[in-house]
Amino acid sequence: MDIKVIGHYTGRFGELWEQSLTDLIKEGVQGVLADAQIDQSEIEAIFVANKAGGSFNEQRHLGALVSEQFTHFPPAMRVEGACASGGLAVAAASQALMSGLYKTVLVLGVEKMTDVNTGEASAILATAASREKEYGSTFPSLYALLANYHMVRYGTTREQLSSVVVKNHRHALTNPKAQFRKEFTIEQVNQSPLVASPLRLLDCSPISDGVAAVILSSKPSSRRTQILGFGQGQDTLALMDRQDLSQLRASTNAMQQALSRAHIKLTDIQAAEVHDCFSIAEILATEDLGFFPKGEAAAAIESGKTTIGGKVIINPSGGLKACGHPVGATGVKQVAFLSKLIEAGQFDCAAAHNVGGSGATAVVTILGEKRS
Amino acid sequence: MDIKVIGHYTGRFGELWEQSLTDLIKEGVQGVLADAQIDQSEIEAIFVANKAGGSFNEQRHLGALVSEQFTHFPPAMRVEGACASGGLAVAAASQALMSGLYKTVLVLGVEKMTDVNTGEASAILATAASREKEYGSTFPSLYALLANYHMVRYGTTREQLSSVVVKNHRHALTNPKAQFRKEFTIEQVNQSPLVASPLRLLDCSPISDGVAAVILSSKPSSRRTQILGFGQGQDTLALMDRQDLSQLRASTNAMQQALSRAHIKLTDIQAAEVHDCFSIAEILATEDLGFFPKGEAAAAIESGKTTIGGKVIINPSGGLKACGHPVGATGVKQVAFLSKLIEAGQFDCAAAHNVGGSGATAVVTILGEKRS
Repeated sequence: MDIKVIGHYTGRFGELWEQSLTDLIKEGVQGVLADAQIDQSEIEAIFVANKAGGSFNEQRHLGALVSEQFTHFPPAMRVEGACASGGLAVAAASQALMSGLYKTVLVLGVEKMTDVNTGEASAILATAASREKEYGSTFPSLYALLANYHMVRYGTTREQLSSVVVKNHRHALTNPKAQFRKEFTIEQVNQSPLVASPLRLLDCSPISDGVAAVILSSKPSSRRTQILGFGQGQDTLALMDRQDLSQLRASTNAMQQALSRAHIKLTDIQAAEVHDCFSIAEILATEDLGFFPKGEAAAAIESGKTTIGGKVIINPSGGLKACGHPVGATGVKQVAFLSKLIEAGQFDCAAAHNVGGSGATAVVTILGEKRS
Repeated sequence: MDIKVIGHYTGRFGELWEQSLTDLIKEGVQGVLADAQIDQSEIEAIFVANKAGGSFNEQRHLGALVSEQFTHFPPAMRVEGACASGGLAVAAASQALMSGLYKTVLVLGVEKMTDVNTGEASAILATAASREKEYGSTFPSLYALLANYHMVRYGTTREQLSSVVVKNHRHALTNPKAQFRKEFTIEQVNQSPLVASPLRLLDCSPISDGVAAVILSSKPSSRRTQILGFGQGQDTLALMDRQDLSQLRASTNAMQQALSRAHIKLTDIQAAEVHDCFSIAEILATEDLGFFPKGEAAAAIESGKTTIGGKVIINPSGGLKACGHPVGATGVKQVAFLSKLIEAGQFDCAAAHNVGGSGATAVVTILGEKRS
């Protein structure tokens, strides 16, 4: 079955003090319907990606909140897999289309995180970790552990971590929806405040508000982008339960499954939005997804092989790092953003890579024009 | 496609102080695999129903937590629609099977609510309501409003509300998994402490811990029960936005869609587990699902037409009221319990009815032996 992306919308990411969670939902629904140029009555089912509206906004039951924006109240469900919720919602929606029960469905990802302070937000985010949090670990410290391991084992340098940040902030300059449209130098990243050694403030993706939405349809459409395949991998929740800290195995498995279902080769993929919640996460993803051999991504990123003109363009949107990371919206934004670039003719084939926790869940969605 | 329930398991519901959330998950996985008599490696995907593990247990990312119970880490997602999460997870799992991507999937519903006190639990549950909570409304008060309306409009009596409770507690006497295996008299219900007039303590379902699981498969199986159809309805989150308080429209729409997909008539349904979070909710459900005309269910229940030997047996498990209501587990337990009764030859066809919020989401799953 051909699943087309017949509409996509990404709202501005940032600290959106003037918009409520419901305002963001309304913006996403209206924006994506306008892009798809369809009447709202054509939406047959809704999949909402959100990590923690119950804690951030005292609002669970987000499926119903999105459904009531429509006069015909389409059936809605919320899908959650920590920070991979967006990718999972796209997968659930695709499965619903493939079931034949629906022809056109909405996927909306939303998170409004700045209604609580940073300490509370960090605690809420940490609920996606495992018993590690009993020892005081939050996600910066878990990814710091992965960074230290990578530095010791592969000689990855502080400058290479910073080069991820510099690249992604430069990419975000051309993305009007990005939370941070501001360049940084390697030196500025190196000297930003330490959060969890070796990770510094500018290594970390921000706390963000935002909405993104796509409309998927199995009906014939003149729109160019199609979901060619998707895959999902899992791993232990806790890093301490893994045999190898050099790899997020879930990412590797998700990509292999997605490639197999899409019937394409990795080298067909010209660009990827990867889950750079921290600078080290992009280095891991660039290796784990197969774009560069293990231990070689950091040097490749540093030497410009993952920016415009390189072998594969990683995070053209600016990634979670510079575009922002409103958790439930992130995975949907990746698909929306890549669909936009494919329609603009910038790529023929691209992949979205969305990770939950410290790699316990990973989803890869391959987008492109179908080759017959 | 035929979707068989090839395994079902319900753990004991109650205040399970000696079991953690993870313990309940392990029990559910082991219990359902044992019932299905399959190896764990046959599970290809997992759908987890849970309302608020992030707030009750500081544990989000429950998909990953269930997946890591398996040596091959099947892809997992959490599905949420407030108290209808269980029914939605069964629907999502069915859609995944119908997509053809998977042949055998696990649905596990779990909630561990007693780790917080009753005040906190009520506040967490209220996050499924709408802006009504700004006026101090929690679910007992919203359902009290529906009860008052029903009493004024249809002459429903205090004794009729109590008759729902008496019946369900009597049914629970034969269910070893029920939280309360204790009979009450009409008088005892009438005189229990007032919670939100006219609803009294014994009109309300309890706060519970528990797990339930089913394994669904599209492979041929000698097991008897099949998912004949499922349907989902939605309505406004807020009661104040509805035109009519005499009906939960979402329930009516869910049943009509389920009947249509199952290709059966309402009169084929011999039993139903309905969402009796409060006594009035069972009266509404019994009407809204079509078993009795509007305004006539209360008298029908009072006169024994919904118990063993009656027209349709409502809540043979004891319902949410007496079996217990561990929120994410409830909708899965309904399907597991009915599958067990169908296998035991007690019915040929039965329906599970799971509601989120005060009727913003409703899911109906029709189970039975397929007639050729």
